[in-house]
Amino acid sequence: MIPMNQPPVSIDLLIEARWVVPVEPHGVVLEDHAVAVDGGRIVAVLPTAAARVAYQPRERVELGEHALIPGLVNSHTHNPMTLLRGLADDLPLMVWLQQHIWPAEAKVIGPEFVRDGVELAVAEMLRGGTTCANENYFFPDAIGATYRKLGFRAVVGLPVIDFPTAWAKSQDEYFERAGEVHDSFRNDTLVSTAFAPHAPYTVCDESFERIRVLADQLDIPVHLHLHETAHEVEEEKQKSGLRPFQRLQRLGLINDRLIAVHMTQLSDGEIAACAEAGVSVVHCPESNLKLASGFCPAEKLRRAGVNLALGTDGCASNNDLDMFGELRTAALLAKAVAEDAAAFDAAFALRAATLNGAKAIGLDAQIGSIEPGKQADLAAVRLSDLETQPLFHVASQLAYAASRHQVSDVWVAGRRKLRGRELVDIDVEAILAKARGWRERIATH
Amino acid sequence: MIPMNQPPVSIDLLIEARWVVPVEPHGVVLEDHAVAVDGGRIVAVLPTAAARVAYQPRERVELGEHALIPGLVNSHTHNPMTLLRGLADDLPLMVWLQQHIWPAEAKVIGPEFVRDGVELAVAEMLRGGTTCANENYFFPDAIGATYRKLGFRAVVGLPVIDFPTAWAKSQDEYFERAGEVHDSFRNDTLVSTAFAPHAPYTVCDESFERIRVLADQLDIPVHLHLHETAHEVEEEKQKSGLRPFQRLQRLGLINDRLIAVHMTQLSDGEIAACAEAGVSVVHCPESNLKLASGFCPAEKLRRAGVNLALGTDGCASNNDLDMFGELRTAALLAKAVAEDAAAFDAAFALRAATLNGAKAIGLDAQIGSIEPGKQADLAAVRLSDLETQPLFHVASQLAYAASRHQVSDVWVAGRRKLRGRELVDIDVEAILAKARGWRERIATH
Repeated sequence: MIPMNQPPVSIDLLIEARWVVPVEPHGVVLEDHAVAVDGGRIVAVLPTAAARVAYQPRERVELGEHALIPGLVNSHTHNPMTLLRGLADDLPLMVWLQQHIWPAEAKVIGPEFVRDGVELAVAEMLRGGTTCANENYFFPDAIGATYRKLGFRAVVGLPVIDFPTAWAKSQDEYFERAGEVHDSFRNDTLVSTAFAPHAPYTVCDESFERIRVLADQLDIPVHLHLHETAHEVEEEKQKSGLRPFQRLQRLGLINDRLIAVHMTQLSDGEIAACAEAGVSVVHCPESNLKLASGFCPAEKLRRAGVNLALGTDGCASNNDLDMFGELRTAALLAKAVAEDAAAFDAAFALRAATLNGAKAIGLDAQIGSIEPGKQADLAAVRLSDLETQPLFHVASQLAYAASRHQVSDVWVAGRRKLRGRELVDIDVEAILAKARGWRERIATH
Repeated sequence: MIPMNQPPVSIDLLIEARWVVPVEPHGVVLEDHAVAVDGGRIVAVLPTAAARVAYQPRERVELGEHALIPGLVNSHTHNPMTLLRGLADDLPLMVWLQQHIWPAEAKVIGPEFVRDGVELAVAEMLRGGTTCANENYFFPDAIGATYRKLGFRAVVGLPVIDFPTAWAKSQDEYFERAGEVHDSFRNDTLVSTAFAPHAPYTVCDESFERIRVLADQLDIPVHLHLHETAHEVEEEKQKSGLRPFQRLQRLGLINDRLIAVHMTQLSDGEIAACAEAGVSVVHCPESNLKLASGFCPAEKLRRAGVNLALGTDGCASNNDLDMFGELRTAALLAKAVAEDAAAFDAAFALRAATLNGAKAIGLDAQIGSIEPGKQADLAAVRLSDLETQPLFHVASQLAYAASRHQVSDVWVAGRRKLRGRELVDIDVEAILAKARGWRERIATH
């Protein structure tokens, strides 16, 4: 804190909010508080009256009817696929993949497609209060460059899969390209990398072993689809005699680098092993429902102390990048699955969508909560709309009543990206024109 | 159709839309079509080019980027409870009811409370494309008068419950007041009535028998919470040896007047009995999830040919009146429950939220689809926003990507109620001021 009789300290930005939901400490809602930002970082969180004495901001933002929250962290997505939004729905998984998604991808995949898809996705995410994406798709070089250009925070997956794709033709080439992409973002302030082996059923033991060693050397996470469906678990058991989770245990991959996505099939022992090893689980409830994959035991994971984060999955299977919708669905669904209306409460839902996501991707020292020293990744939600009135409890209103359309302002690393619902430095018309162009190419296949 | 060489016919309104989703015929999307409206009714649905020749409208509305759909029908709600939105969440059912909802209601319930709650609810519903509510709460006289005043379509429940409340002190008084309220809306064009016995566990056989006879005489539906939880079914079995559904069969209430709400616990035989008897089931997926009530077998009901409608339930347990959210949750959840990604498709979700609701409440000859002769209850959804781009399939985009915040214009019986997202003849500031006033009274209890 600033001593009372000092002259005011000059800072870049002071955001004065009716409520600040810092996420850490857990469950706290601060009334009439301000967040002081300088050099892209949060320097203080304090009562607005005190902030006005202590700071001389170059920009002051007054949010008299808003809750200021940490920017949401979408912990599993395939953002180039935003261009395939709603291409094929209401179909069995294999028909969907083999007759619709793969043929469409085969026709368009490449650096231009992923760039234009990520641009559309970033615009959608910012309008919905999301400031960080854990990305998983081919052409991570072009993907990472696009995030960097747009000033959006992302962890970019380095794909590894057993068969040749447009990105790489052999296992060696996947690893070579992974190394190159990792190096190219080594010193970037917004974009970092993770290994992204597709899934146990598409990645061989040898590649998993290389990933384990390299992830340790490079000190990066391993982002993996795991136990998405019962079918996947059965298939592996018939092949190797092991559940996929057991196979990964043998390979040494059940550790605190692992971001295990989906996890609809879990024994109590596997849940305990996740907690013990420090595995992060990313729950994608809407994707799991829509593809009829199964029900992740989210409340059991929470109670076991597993770090549980949330993701939208890609727009081909969701069909949006709405983290407010996702955290609400997660909270609602967890209660029914646990048969307990008190499960997965509103404060936990907000934590799962922010700080737990940051922890999963290894960025919890930098983002995920509103604390001094962290990056100023922030979102303001206007709660005066009639859809969120009357207002008894801020966290409850954010989790169960507010819509992403009530997000008014967003900052990434202290830079304003959304102002009164308008994107600041993104050309929406150009993005939409490109999306329509891709639609023409894809729809005529 | 109008012969080509006739002079144009004078009508009140012509709505020209990029797409019209009539719901009936099922699964159809009409491109560049217009809906001609006169005297509050739809007189024709035809290509816009032909409509411009055939009609001379007093008002023309061009919706070049929009889908025009039937106004959504919220088939189960307790709208006065909108004033209790988010009062108490994340609590076990009995703690929620006994320590929060009932004490709050006891303090405020009365004609003013229900009036102000319904006003807030109508504003929210119109902004979300909903044009009709199947209402279930005390003081139906004041509730019905409020809907009438606001020009909103509603079926108002006539409460019957075994214990005294602020509305009536004895069984005789419930029936007397039901008759009075029914009579007062007998000739109303927007407001009609249904019996609303609370649930099998709070209504005795004698009252159910009176309801069966009176519902036939008055030719009105019977709107009932049924099989909401496994606990309710078990309790009745221990009391009477019957499941609640069986008890109602004996009482002659399993018939085509019955609007059975929730129905999370159903045997295959009960599903078949619903189909055979013409029972309508109202699925409230978000309420069922949030209160951990269980999973309604929505896809089984659909396949059995049961008329399946959708409701939000009240805002104390949802916490919104968002029928777009509800139809999406219904479609997503049904797939996971049925273990079939092809279940409960987008076109069916739109039908459940419109025509099936109209059928449940006995209004399918008047509303629920865009067909000549029906009331012009309509909602326009702007699909050019980046959240719904690119656009491959209109029905899919409406069900899986669009938000209620993309609803631009709404008509009830041909009268515009929402224009470019602004409520036309409703004083939002006054409604919000009253909501804040009730909050002060309730929060300090």
